[in-house]
Parts: sequence; structure tokens; C-alpha cells
Amino acid sequence: MDLLSIKDPSFLKNMSIDELNDLSADIRQFLIENLSKTGGHIGPNLGVVELTIALHRCFRSPTDKILWDVGHQSYVHKILTGRAGQFDTLRQYKGLCGFPKCSESEHDVWETGHSSTSLSAAMGMVIARDLKKEKSHIIPVIGDGALTGGMALEALNHIGHEKKNMIVILNDNEMSIAPNVGALHQMLGRLRTAGKYNWVKDELESLLKKIPAVGGKMAQTAERLKDSLKYLFVTGMFFEEMGFTYLGPIDGHNFEDLLEQLQYAKKVEGPVLVHVITKKGKGYRPAELDTKGTWHGIGPYKMETGTIIKPMNQPPAWSFLVSETARKIARTDDRVVAITPAMPVGSKLLGFAEEFPDRMFDVGIAEQHAATVAAGLATQGMKPFLAIYSTFLQRAYDQVVHDICRPNLNVFIGIDRAGLVGADGETHQGVFDIAFLRHLPNMVLMMPKDENEGQHLVYTAFQYNEGPIAMRFPRGNGLGVPMDEELKEIPIGSWEVLKEGQDVAILTFGTTIPMAMKAAEQAEKQGISVKVVNARFIKPMDEEMLLNILNADMPILTIEEAVLEGGFGSAVLEFAHDHGHHHHVIDRMGIPDRFIEHGSVNLLLEEIELTEEAAVGKLHAMIPKKQKRA
Amino acid sequence: MDLLSIKDPSFLKNMSIDELNDLSADIRQFLIENLSKTGGHIGPNLGVVELTIALHRCFRSPTDKILWDVGHQSYVHKILTGRAGQFDTLRQYKGLCGFPKCSESEHDVWETGHSSTSLSAAMGMVIARDLKKEKSHIIPVIGDGALTGGMALEALNHIGHEKKNMIVILNDNEMSIAPNVGALHQMLGRLRTAGKYNWVKDELESLLKKIPAVGGKMAQTAERLKDSLKYLFVTGMFFEEMGFTYLGPIDGHNFEDLLEQLQYAKKVEGPVLVHVITKKGKGYRPAELDTKGTWHGIGPYKMETGTIIKPMNQPPAWSFLVSETARKIARTDDRVVAITPAMPVGSKLLGFAEEFPDRMFDVGIAEQHAATVAAGLATQGMKPFLAIYSTFLQRAYDQVVHDICRPNLNVFIGIDRAGLVGADGETHQGVFDIAFLRHLPNMVLMMPKDENEGQHLVYTAFQYNEGPIAMRFPRGNGLGVPMDEELKEIPIGSWEVLKEGQDVAILTFGTTIPMAMKAAEQAEKQGISVKVVNARFIKPMDEEMLLNILNADMPILTIEEAVLEGGFGSAVLEFAHDHGHHHHVIDRMGIPDRFIEHGSVNLLLEEIELTEEAAVGKLHAMIPKKQKRA
Repeated sequence: MDLLSIKDPSFLKNMSIDELNDLSADIRQFLIENLSKTGGHIGPNLGVVELTIALHRCFRSPTDKILWDVGHQSYVHKILTGRAGQFDTLRQYKGLCGFPKCSESEHDVWETGHSSTSLSAAMGMVIARDLKKEKSHIIPVIGDGALTGGMALEALNHIGHEKKNMIVILNDNEMSIAPNVGALHQMLGRLRTAGKYNWVKDELESLLKKIPAVGGKMAQTAERLKDSLKYLFVTGMFFEEMGFTYLGPIDGHNFEDLLEQLQYAKKVEGPVLVHVITKKGKGYRPAELDTKGTWHGIGPYKMETGTIIKPMNQPPAWSFLVSETARKIARTDDRVVAITPAMPVGSKLLGFAEEFPDRMFDVGIAEQHAATVAAGLATQGMKPFLAIYSTFLQRAYDQVVHDICRPNLNVFIGIDRAGLVGADGETHQGVFDIAFLRHLPNMVLMMPKDENEGQHLVYTAFQYNEGPIAMRFPRGNGLGVPMDEELKEIPIGSWEVLKEGQDVAILTFGTTIPMAMKAAEQAEKQGISVKVVNARFIKPMDEEMLLNILNADMPILTIEEAVLEGGFGSAVLEFAHDHGHHHHVIDRMGIPDRFIEHGSVNLLLEEIELTEEAAVGKLHAMIPKKQKRA
Repeated sequence: MDLLSIKDPSFLKNMSIDELNDLSADIRQFLIENLSKTGGHIGPNLGVVELTIALHRCFRSPTDKILWDVGHQSYVHKILTGRAGQFDTLRQYKGLCGFPKCSESEHDVWETGHSSTSLSAAMGMVIARDLKKEKSHIIPVIGDGALTGGMALEALNHIGHEKKNMIVILNDNEMSIAPNVGALHQMLGRLRTAGKYNWVKDELESLLKKIPAVGGKMAQTAERLKDSLKYLFVTGMFFEEMGFTYLGPIDGHNFEDLLEQLQYAKKVEGPVLVHVITKKGKGYRPAELDTKGTWHGIGPYKMETGTIIKPMNQPPAWSFLVSETARKIARTDDRVVAITPAMPVGSKLLGFAEEFPDRMFDVGIAEQHAATVAAGLATQGMKPFLAIYSTFLQRAYDQVVHDICRPNLNVFIGIDRAGLVGADGETHQGVFDIAFLRHLPNMVLMMPKDENEGQHLVYTAFQYNEGPIAMRFPRGNGLGVPMDEELKEIPIGSWEVLKEGQDVAILTFGTTIPMAMKAAEQAEKQGISVKVVNARFIKPMDEEMLLNILNADMPILTIEEAVLEGGFGSAVLEFAHDHGHHHHVIDRMGIPDRFIEHGSVNLLLEEIELTEEAAVGKLHAMIPKKQKRA
């Protein structure tokens, strides 16, 4: 059918199973074609085509509320709720968001991006529904990977206790972003092989009838056993123990099964968990064959062959550089142990894991646990490398405070995807890390200017023995600079003058350095002599160099790809005033106080005026003030 | 025996069971006597006397590592490791810490304060041990309450998967701080009543033998059932599903049982969970009879009667004021719903819960879930009141960012115990909240000067419909000011001039206002005219008033009981420079960049020079500078 003509999901009610299957095929074709041009989360979406259709057929959205955990699997939902026509703008500036977005549609009732939030949000909605005495179904859809996130487990515990009506769909595709790990995953594996949901229970009943009557203590035992059986002897025990009615496992690509079980779930009192088995990438062979998570989220590709279209001869990715440097160091330092919360692929740790299978731990989607495992390792003299995205480190904030910084443990945090990340948008921008780490005692925070300095700072981090040390680095690739053969230590708290100048100083670091250099050159042509400093240590700062600049009475412009409130620029302000430099022109550029949506990083930088032109303007504005004072 | 003579736990090896029981009695008497003078966490420690003795008898600390989750139950451990003589200084300035502290003893191998970290830390230690090929036991001791914290569940999932040797002691006292909630707790309840650990398994085996031989499909079924039984039909299924060997439940006050099972646990390959049932407050009747958590942590009391010694006629506690105001508002606004992560007692929500049993949710130790439940409620037009301690809000940082601020939802966060908390020390100081909330878009953050303004700000928060709003308030009691009958709204972002003055302006809020007023009066006597502003809105600030002060060229002193890096003072610096006021004397007072240990708040304030004298000194220092400029 013409997917562009869909306004809302009501048309599904009258479709036959055959028609639903045809629709599934159409949607798959649409996704494979469109995403080959825009890129996007193809694997997760191909896996939930039938499930999404079945949900919209059985429930009345938006009265009934479907919450997509993580949210990268909401493309089919977007198509069924009238947004097929916008897929050519997917994940682009001002275009269709890659995650649920309330402003796009009334059918998007919960916005996500980070995992494991849907059960908690659903619980809030359930409480509200019951207090308002409304009738509706609340249906969080959560993957088996997201289920191991601590907050999802906290939610299961609470939901199972409260016994309110909620229909949890467990979308079990045996992998989240990378193949899943953890005991819960193994348990789900046992469930999957255990067969139809009531099988054991039914068979057991008839088996028990064959137990001969016995007297005395044994009879008592038998009775007690029978009582226990109903709850003990069902597959899905784990969920039954947690207070849920367990339904499943169900073939998530079979409409008869899906519709039957969803209808049944509607009638169950109390929380119910429907265990749906799906195949990630279903219907597109290159994605189906993927075992490592390559086809989870992807850029453009050739539809016919599944060849991924990549720019030629790019410098290595930052994640690769950092993880491979750690691997190199691990060869001579057996204290080095790497930890990732479910991101071995994104953090490029597969090489490390291959070389040191005993020294790389993927702990699943469990950022809190990951951080404190690192702390535990450090107490024993190991050198843990916690590889984590900036946006996900937010979830381990308390562990960084309480378990790493407070006892001052030697943990190296590699903060990946720091700064603007582009297409993933506002849930994933790595812009808060400086503001939430800078105020922590004992923390050393750095950002390299290029991949060569990056490898040296990684080395520096592993040599450092005075407490926690973190290096933020951007999404994407290095600059292509020559790499030193030998790794070397860079003194903690040392900045570097990139360009001398007399009139004004720019203090910046990482991704904004090239822009700052261009702005300086531009201003130079206009008669302003600009000093540019690579402030690679955000904390501690190079106090000597900063004092020299302050004493020289040069106005200062700070530039950072991070939020301005409490950021690096604020650190410079604090330092200046704390050292009696109350009469100093200091201006700051960075991310303004609002959430930044998706789009290419360059367009976003323009939108927030973090550009060369803006910097030149600032430099001009600062000079007259300085001269007025002289 | 003479507890003061204990140097280390080695003496336990040669004691008979009778002697161990005598020792337990001595320790109980010691705790009841000493804590009646100093206060402390008496309930949890009386509950673990036998357990702690048994652990130190069976294991060789510190080679074997015992990790106390939360850590407030480590007093007996402190006595057995040579610290009995320091109990008269418990939780006092420079005295014995109320939590494990590595600097106190080599037997304290993991520092805590926040709950649910021990399993993750233990996992780090286990990995380190195995990589270093060392032989030792790693033994985290975790309560049934702490077990529901998300990070503990994340850890169970990982530990169960890795199958490395670890002995987890589940100290199940049926309550953590308040009575426990949650499906896991209910499950533990079933385990407790199920009897001895191998009971069901053994009985079942003999029962199964009686099943008559059957052919065909039924025989297959029987076989399959038998295969499943070993793992399905044990009490402790939940933990077995998670990959642990489950031992228990064990009477935690019976040495024979404890020692036998701990010895057995040492021999088990892979992770083992020993389920120990203890009674909080065991051996002290007032504490034993406590059902609400009053005797969890407590001030001094009369030992003979259990009467709690309280100063007479104190103003109401801040927590009480805030929760009771919310309760009052809830009477006319049925959108108000209160949420607490396991702190109904501390947050004084029992009255609210009694009046509105359907509108108060204790979600257990689950701060992340609590925050996002609030977000879910807000999406449905409810007015959630998230009551949470400042230090524990750290654990929900990502949820505040991603689930509350990003979608700009109307959640009211009551941030309890903000600022220095005193005896609980560095793990509990509520000093980071401004720094970790101020940089979040959409967040409104306030702190009242007294309890009357406090009730109005609570009212203001519930009237506010533009997004998240948080009010921080201190531990302890109000000032005793008269209370208005009628609640009123205070304009968002409005400050209040408390005292006019011409030479210099102090901007401060909350607990530091009385000190600032005294400093101003003192300085006034010395010829400096000081304006004092109640900067009750930390974000957004009163930009008009601040601009007026800047335009009047008055030097500014900011005072806050919070970390200086990225705090309120930084916000003032940022604003001044952003508005072109580059030549303005601005000085800041607050918490320095290090962790602040335990002790009375007044002594701590002196230590960090957050005092009237220091403020007067600052005021003097600022004036010449200003005059130099004039």
C-alpha cells in the first residue's frame, strides 16, 4: 500500500492477516530503501515491523499509550502514525527525529534516547490513569538489553509490587546494540528454548495427578509442593517472582500469535509481561547476518549489496584511537583492564577484547555498575579504563562522585562522543560533562587537540597515580595528523601556546581549536594580535600560564563545545576573580542554556553561533574595551 | 570480655560457641551504652552482631575482603578490628567515622555511605584477584533494601554471568531504613517462610521417584521436568536464575548455622548468595519493637527506657515543613502525588501517606526510577513531588537531565539535606546539587531563607506550570519564625533585599543568610554599608536586581553552602561578564574543592572558613579595591 497516505493507525483494524503481512513487506521495503540514503537504526526497526503493527492494531493510540524504550526502534511507529513522508529528512537538521518526539505526533507519548526509562515512565502514567479513574492501556516496549539497566530493574520491582495494570512488551532480539551479556540474558535464553508459555504448567498438572496418595509427612510435602507449583513451575519464573503475569515466548513475526497474546494480555489483571522474540534486521539479509551490531545504527549503504558507503581514506575514529592506545599500553602494563557498558562496538574495544579476553568486560547496559567495578579494580592496584559515552556517563554521576572521586581512585574515564554528536540529537549531545565533572574534588579532566596528543594523554592517564583522570574526545574521526611512534607523558595541568599574540588570548581545547585558529588568523588580518592556547587540561588548569595572561592584562576569550553554565569559561572567571583579577575582560563562547536538537554538527554550530565569524566578532568587541581601560 | 583490648579479629578463631555468644552480649551492651551518648545507627548494628563475628571468624580479613554495603552497619566490624576505644568520638569532628573508612583501618576495604555499591566494587576486586592469580574471598554484605537499588541489580546480572567466585551475604532484616517495599521484598518474604534451604529440593527428589513410569510424550515431559527441577525447584529460584548458588535462609543470630553455612559457602565454585535473616535492633527492646525505622539512626537516648533525648521546643524540621505543606496543598489539588525513594520517615511523608494513601509512593531505594516515575506522572498532567535528599539526587542526575528537564516536565523536586549534613560526613554532604543542576536547561532552582518563605516556595512550585522546579532545604530544623496562614506565590526569579546598604552587596540564600546578616552588621559598625540580598532563586536569578547592583558599581560578595566550582557565585560571575561588567569586584565564599568529612556543621563551617569573621574580612578586602577604582 501507499505508506505516504497513512494518517493514523486506525486503518489497521479492518485488515486481514494476509494484508498485515503485505503491509509488513511494504514497510520493510520502505525502510531498506529510505535508510540506504539517510542512514539510521535499521536493524532494530526491521525487527519490530510486525510487533509495531500488532500493537497499533490491538490498542487505540494515543488513548492507549505505547512507550518505546530507547526509542531508536520507533520508525515503524512513525510510519503508522502518518510520518512516512518525512523519512527523507530523518535525523537531519530540522527533519524527522530518530527517536520519539512529542512535538511530532500525539502518538509519541514518551521521549527517549537513553535506555531503560520506559518502565518507570509507564509506572507514572499508570498511577496517573488510576488516580484519574481513566481507562486505558499503558504499554512500554523494552528490549532485552535495556532490561538490564538498573533503573528498569528498579521499575520491575516497583511495578510487580504495586500490581497495577500495565502491559510490558519485552522485545527480545538476543542483542541490544552489541550482543547482550548478563545472567538475565542467559535466563531469557533458557526461556526461549523452553517452548510455549503454558507448556510446563499444563503438563505438570497432569503429571502431579499421577503421584500416588501418600500419608504422613510426605503427604504434607506433596500438598505444599502443589501449592508452590502454580507460581514456581511456570516458565518465566523470574518475572512471576517479580509479580508479573508472564506470557510467552511468542514469535514476534507471526501475526496470529502476536494478536492472540496481546488480546489476552489486555484482560489480565495486574502487570503482565509479554515476551516477544524478534530478529533484528529481519527481512534484509546483510542486517540479519550481522552478529556484531554493525547494522544496529548505520550510515548510508548500497541497498542491493549492503555495502556501507564510507568516505575514503578517513583518519581513524577517535574511539578507535583511544581504545587501541589503551590496548598498546596493556601489552606492557598488565594492570590495564577495559570496561564498557554495552558499547564494545561503538567504543572500538573488539580489538582489545580479542587480544586480552580476560581484561575486557562488557557489563551490559549498566553504567552505574561499570563505574563502580572500575573503582573496585582500582582499590586493588589495577588501572581500569572505563570507556563510556559522555551522555551515558551522566547515569554514573553518583558513582563518579561517591565511588571514584571521593576515595580518589586511579580510574581512567575515556569520555567518548563529547560535544555535539549530530544526528542522534538532544538526548545524546555530550555537552554537560565538563559542568558535571569540573566541580568534583580530585578529578583531572582533559581534552586533546588532535589524535597525536590524544594518544599521549591516554598514556598520561595510565601513568597518573594520584586519582581519577578523564579524557573527553569527540564523535567522529581524528584530524589526520602524523602520529608519534613513542608515547609520552604530558605534564598534568599544562597548557600549550599554539600561536603567540599580544592583544587578546583565546583559551580553548579539543574540537574548537581549528575554529579558534582560523578566527585568530582572520582577526590578525584585521590588526588584532591573537594568542591561542590549547587548554588541554580543563581541570586542573595551567595556573601559571593563566596568571601570566591575566598579569599581561590581555582580554580572554574562552571557547568550548560544552554548556556555558559552570563550564571551562566559568573556571577561568572563577580563577581570575579568586586571584584578584576583578578588572579583566573575559568573554565566553559555548553551548547556550537549552537542549540542542539533531542535525549535522556544522549546522548546529551555526545555529548556536559557535563559529569563526562569531569568534572574530567577539575578538573585535573585546579590544576597544581593553583600550578604553588603557 | 574487654572490648577495648581487641586489636584484630584473630582472637575469634579459638572461641567456643558459648564464648561467641558471650562476646555478642558484650558487644550489644557496649553499643547500647555508647550510642545512648553519641547517637548513631543502632538498629542496623544490633542486627549484625553475630553475623559480623561469624564473618571475622570464618574469613581472614583483610586478605579476605568484607565490603559493608551502605556501611552504617559496620560498628561491630570496627569493634572487632581494634576501634572500640574510639566510640566516644563516633561521628564527631575528627572522630570515628560512622561508615567504613580506609584511613582508619586496613580492614575497611571499601568506603561507602550510599547504598547498593558493594556488589559492583566486589566484582572489581574479584576481577583483580583473578587476574593477579591471588587466593582470597571477596564478601560483600548487602541488605535486602539496598538490593533493590538499580546498580545492585545490574551487578547481580553481571556477577551471575561471569561465574567468578564471590560470596554475597544478603542481610535480610525485612527493612532497610524504612520497611522495605517492592516485589523483590515480597519474594524474600516467601523465601523466609519456605524453611530450610534444601528442604524443597530434597523432598522433591523422593517425591519424583514415586511418579509411575509412563510412556510416550508423557515420559518425555517427565524427563524434561526432572532436568528442569534442579534449577527450577529450589527456594531462592530468583538468585539461581541470576546465576548464583543460593544458600539459606539462615538464622543470623545462631552461630552454629552461620558458621556451618559460611564454611560451606567457601567451597562453592562460582558466585554464592548466603541469605541471612537478622532482626534489626536485636537485643534492645525499644529498637526491636520499632516498626517504622525510628531506631535506624538516632540521636542520644536514655539507655534504660529508650526515651529519645530531644531538645525541647524546637522549630519544626525542614522535611516536616515541606512535606506537610505539600500535604496541605494536596487537599485542594488532587494532582499532587508524592514519591520517595525509601525515605518516608526521613522525608516526613508518613502524614501525607496516611491522609492520601493512594497518592504517596515509596518506590524503595531506587532514585532513578523515582525521578522518572515523577516524569511519567507529569506527562499526564499530575503534579509530582519528588522528595529526595541532595546526596541521593546525585544518583538520578541522568533522569533529571533526560527525563525531566529535556522534555520540560512539571516535576517538583524537594531537595532535602542540602548543604553540610554533619555527622553522616563526606558521603552525605549535600553540596554538589547547585553545581549539577544549575547547568540544566529549563531547571528552576530555589532555596528559602526560613520556613515561612519555605512554605510559600513549596506553594509556588506547585503553581508553576512551565517545567521542572526544585527547592533545596537544609537538614535540621527551621528558624522558628512566625508562619503565615495563607500560602502565597513568590514570583519566579525574584530576590529580596533584606538590608539596604551602599558600599557592597552580599548575595546569599538559605542557611548562610543569618551569618551574612551578622557579618553585615559587624562590617556596618566598622564603617562599611552592606546591602544583603536573599537570592532565593539560584536559577533563574533576579537579573533586574543584579543588573542594578552591577550598574551601581557595588562590589559583590556571594555566599553559599555549596561547592564553589560552578555554583551560585559562578552564575553571578557569568552574568556580570556576559553583560559587559568586566570590571567588577566579585568575590565568592562557599565550599572548597575537596570532600568535607563528618563533624558538627558549625565546626565544619569553621574549618572551611565559611564564617562571619571570614565574611567580614572579605568585605573589608573588597572596599579598598573598589575605592582604588573610583
